[in-house]
Order: sequence, then structure tokens, then C-alpha cells
Amino acid sequence: MVNVPNIELNDGNKMPVVGFGLWKVSNDTCAEQVYNAIKTGYRLFDGACDYGNEVECGQGVARAIKEGIVKREELFLVSKLWNSFHDADQVEPITKKQLADWGIDYFDLYLIHFPISLEYVSPETRYPPGWYYDGESEVRHGKTSLESTWKAMEGLKKSGLAKSIGVSNYSGALLLDMFTYAEIKPATLQIEHHPYFVQPNLIKLAEQHKIAVTAYSSFGPLSFIECDMKVAEDTPTLLEHDIIKKAAEKHGKTPAQVLLRWATQRGLSVIPKSNSPKRLAENLDVTSFDLTSDEISQISDLDRGLKFNVPTNYGIPIYVFA
Amino acid sequence: MVNVPNIELNDGNKMPVVGFGLWKVSNDTCAEQVYNAIKTGYRLFDGACDYGNEVECGQGVARAIKEGIVKREELFLVSKLWNSFHDADQVEPITKKQLADWGIDYFDLYLIHFPISLEYVSPETRYPPGWYYDGESEVRHGKTSLESTWKAMEGLKKSGLAKSIGVSNYSGALLLDMFTYAEIKPATLQIEHHPYFVQPNLIKLAEQHKIAVTAYSSFGPLSFIECDMKVAEDTPTLLEHDIIKKAAEKHGKTPAQVLLRWATQRGLSVIPKSNSPKRLAENLDVTSFDLTSDEISQISDLDRGLKFNVPTNYGIPIYVFA
Repeated sequence: MVNVPNIELNDGNKMPVVGFGLWKVSNDTCAEQVYNAIKTGYRLFDGACDYGNEVECGQGVARAIKEGIVKREELFLVSKLWNSFHDADQVEPITKKQLADWGIDYFDLYLIHFPISLEYVSPETRYPPGWYYDGESEVRHGKTSLESTWKAMEGLKKSGLAKSIGVSNYSGALLLDMFTYAEIKPATLQIEHHPYFVQPNLIKLAEQHKIAVTAYSSFGPLSFIECDMKVAEDTPTLLEHDIIKKAAEKHGKTPAQVLLRWATQRGLSVIPKSNSPKRLAENLDVTSFDLTSDEISQISDLDRGLKFNVPTNYGIPIYVFA
Repeated sequence: MVNVPNIELNDGNKMPVVGFGLWKVSNDTCAEQVYNAIKTGYRLFDGACDYGNEVECGQGVARAIKEGIVKREELFLVSKLWNSFHDADQVEPITKKQLADWGIDYFDLYLIHFPISLEYVSPETRYPPGWYYDGESEVRHGKTSLESTWKAMEGLKKSGLAKSIGVSNYSGALLLDMFTYAEIKPATLQIEHHPYFVQPNLIKLAEQHKIAVTAYSSFGPLSFIECDMKVAEDTPTLLEHDIIKKAAEKHGKTPAQVLLRWATQRGLSVIPKSNSPKRLAENLDVTSFDLTSDEISQISDLDRGLKFNVPTNYGIPIYVFA
């Protein structure tokens, strides 16, 4: 079994540099996939209210713990606060609901999923609530500032419901503003990150503040083709890109491993997902070889400043990334 | 003399759609240029602490008023709050200093220049303070949130020191966060805007909230070549771009007029500057012809998501646009 290295976060907690991303893992197979991933050596699982599968994630975890494959304290379980729960007084209740769904009593890391407040929707009405846009009515923006939400997130760390707290999809300006009001700095920043969206300056800013950066959608357009996103369909796939394939052949690795290694050598952690046991193991094994600095540069030069995970790309008129 | 149309702002005030931008107008010629621009028909002047020429701007205005060419209430004078004056208790004092420099008792519009707080520098120490980065020491970030600064800006409108207030260089996420805490919404948003940086979604967001958008650097890389910015030097100039030149020839206008008309037909106001009396008049005359919708689309298709006015492009390690 591969031994995944840990990094130390700015609050002293340790986090594996490779984990399993739970976005788009189907409810039917989720428990089994989490269980198998734990057997393969995965310890970090990156979930969210929005992924709609936290109950099943918890079932997979419970089975592995019950069978003695892993202890709770050896796992690093991540979840995220959805946009419609930004109101300060909704943060703790929804975190407790999400913990109950997982069947655990703390998250290792809990993130603000997107830097935008939407109107509260009760879990009884609709869960997960999603962007709550039906294509006709107005977007239901919320009235809670990111500062208020962050203060409530700090409360989660203080009460122990989350061992570490962080943010996702934040820009440099949002982080800089946050630093003026945060009592506890985010431990991690999770961002879309692949060779078409390299963001060197955002990563520098995070490094300056000892914020660990986690890459999502490391394979670029691939994740979004599943969502029928036109701009993703129109962008050359990375797994078959000459530069990536050439590096993969040279190192005797897969293109996916090259993409993940490119990110981890830049100091980021990664959270790929796979439905295939073989690729599951391959994705975990990303620190056993090193790309040359030339290879890293060539891959970084593919940058197009192209972020796929933008509401407007799904037809949702929310301009949080404008 | 050209009659420049006004637009009505969301607070009921009226603003000309074309003005004179005062960035990089040299102290030697500034008073004369402002005076001549008023004679040519300019009514809006877009200044800032950071441009370092507010005293001379005021001299040009005073001369025109004294000679009876214009009355103060016919002018629309704009200035901006620099980053190092974001502390809530510094906003009013610096506004008063800037008003004293201009020799006037109110601004028609006063903007937060950049969405970033830097450490306070007293005007006695260094004025204008600039980014206050010497290439070696650390950047001196401030400790004031954008919310605190905006509340102080609202105070300026309430006290009448500024008839309207707004922001510049804000992103969609910053605006959306602002809408959760603003008692007074910004009347205008000033952004870098040219065919290489089209930002349709940011403009849609502003429209939704009736925030008037003002374009700066309408000629794209040209403004930044003067600053020895490599990325600007490496980008094809717009004034000689085939698509722009073709439209100019067809309409019997200059490429500059086409670029300005492209912006105003998209609903934006513009603030070009020129040292030449001829171009000064031409720049003002941007509503006397219409580009076809095909021409507008072709120009918009030049979009590269390319913002030049980024501190890192000047060698300043401030990641506010990361």
C-alpha cells in the first residue's frame, strides 16, 4: 500500500497531500468506492453538502472502521459549507447535520465552498439545495457578508466541530480582505487548478500566508465534459496532450499521474476521483517520481487562464467569478 | 462644441458618458490641458490622489471658471481614495485634503481606487504614497476591511463631500459581498476595459444593480507601454488592428473613436486622455456614429481576458488580482 505523505497546516494539523474527491460520485456506488479507496490507502476524503452523497460517504467510512481497516483518527474527512447556509446562525446547525450524515463528530477540515451568500433554504425543503435557480426566476442572493460567515466558521474550529477551517474558490482580493478581519486564517485554499488554469500569483499569495493549496479538477476539461459544458468540450483534453503524454512515456507513468505530480511538485495537494480500482491506486502514487523542471515549465506554459467551474458555464446567471 | 450626453446614476445624479482621464497627465501641462479640455467641451474629469496632479487639475478648473467658460455645477469632478487611506478614520481627512488640492468643496464622484487596504502613510511623509514598495522590503498591507472603508465612503455621501460614491477595480465576488453590507450601493464601477478585456459578465452584474460602468484604458496596451510593461509591449496594438482600422475607415472615424464607441455602445462611459487638441476633440465625439452589431461582435471577439493594470506587471508583489 502506498504511503501518502502529510503536510503540516498553519494550525499544526496534518493533512495528506493526496485524497479522494467525492464530487459526482454517484449515490449507488459511493459507499463502496469510499470503502475501497480506504483499502487502497486513501485517508483524505473531500466531500461537500453540494455533492449530495455525504450519507453514503459515511457508510463507506463506517464499514472500513468497523472492519478494523482504519481508525477515525487516521482519516482526514473534509466537507464544505454550501452557499445557502452562509447566515452566521445557520453555520453550526448545518455542520451538525452534515456530521450526522457522515456519522462522525468532527470534520478534519471544513471549507466555505464558494465566496457567495445565497438565500437560506431549509434542509426539509430541499437538500442539497444547489444553486436554486430554475432558469426562470431570479437568483436568490443572501444578505450575509463573507466576514460574518467566516466568523461563524471560526466558531466551528473553537467548538471542535472542525479541526481546521478553510475556503474554496476564493480570489486574491477576497483573501486579502479576509486577512483584515480573520482571527483565524484559513488553513487551506481549495481551487480549480490544471495546466489551463495555473494561477501562479494566487499560489504565491497562499504560500506567503502559509495556506495550503488543494487543487480540484486536476485533469482540466475532463471533469466538466460530464456536465455537458460546451467550453470544456471545445478545449483539447489534457490526458491526450502531447506534452503530457511525452512526460508520461518518459517516466513510465500515466498522463493522469503526470498531471497530479505536476500539481504536487508545485506544492499543492490533489483530490482526484476515479471509478476504476487500477486508476485509484495509480492516482495515489504520485510522489514516487519527479518531473524535471523543464517538464513542469512546459506544462505550466499551457496556461490559458481558463476556469471551467463557473456558474455561468452551467447557465446560472451568478457572476461570482466575473 | 460637441454636446456630450449624460446618463443618470442609481442615486439620481447625472454623469457625462465621456470624460477626460487624468492618469499620467504630467504636472507641467496638467492645468493647461484641463483648461483646454473644458474649452473643447469636456465636463467630466477623472482624477485620483495617485495621479499626483490634483493641485494642477484644480488650477485648470479654477481658470476656466474664473474666465466664465463653465460653472462648477456644470462640471463632474471625480477623484479616488488611495489604498493607504482605507482606515475608516482616514477617509474623510484625505478626501478633504484632496478637495483642498482641487480647490473645490465637493467631488461629484469619489471612488475606492483598488480593493485593497495598505498601511497608512501620512501625507507629510510621502504624497502621493503609491504602492509604497521599494523592491526589497515587504508590502505594507493594511488592516481595514473593504466593508469598513465602504461605510466611511457612505459617510462622505451623507456629509456631501461626495455627491456620488463608487468603486474601481472590483470583481464580481467583491461586488456581491459588498451588496450584503452596503447601505448605499456604488453609483459607478470603474474598470480596465478594452477589446482584450471585455468582461461581459461583470458588466451584466453591474447592469442588474444599476451601477454605471466606466471604462479606463480603452486603447488597451497603449496606456501601459508608456509604463514599460512587457506584457503590453508584447501585445498587438489595438489602434492598428485590422478589425479596428477597417471599422474606422468605413465610418470615416479614427481607430481611437471606434474603440471608444465600441465601449459606449456597450453602455459604458469612457475617460480617454490625449495631449493633442485634435484628438481631444475627436475623443469627445463618440456618439455621432454607430458601429453595426457585427462590428461590435467582431471587436468583442478579440477578448483575451487580459488585464494589464495589475501590480505584479509593475514588479510589485501584491496579489489583489490573483
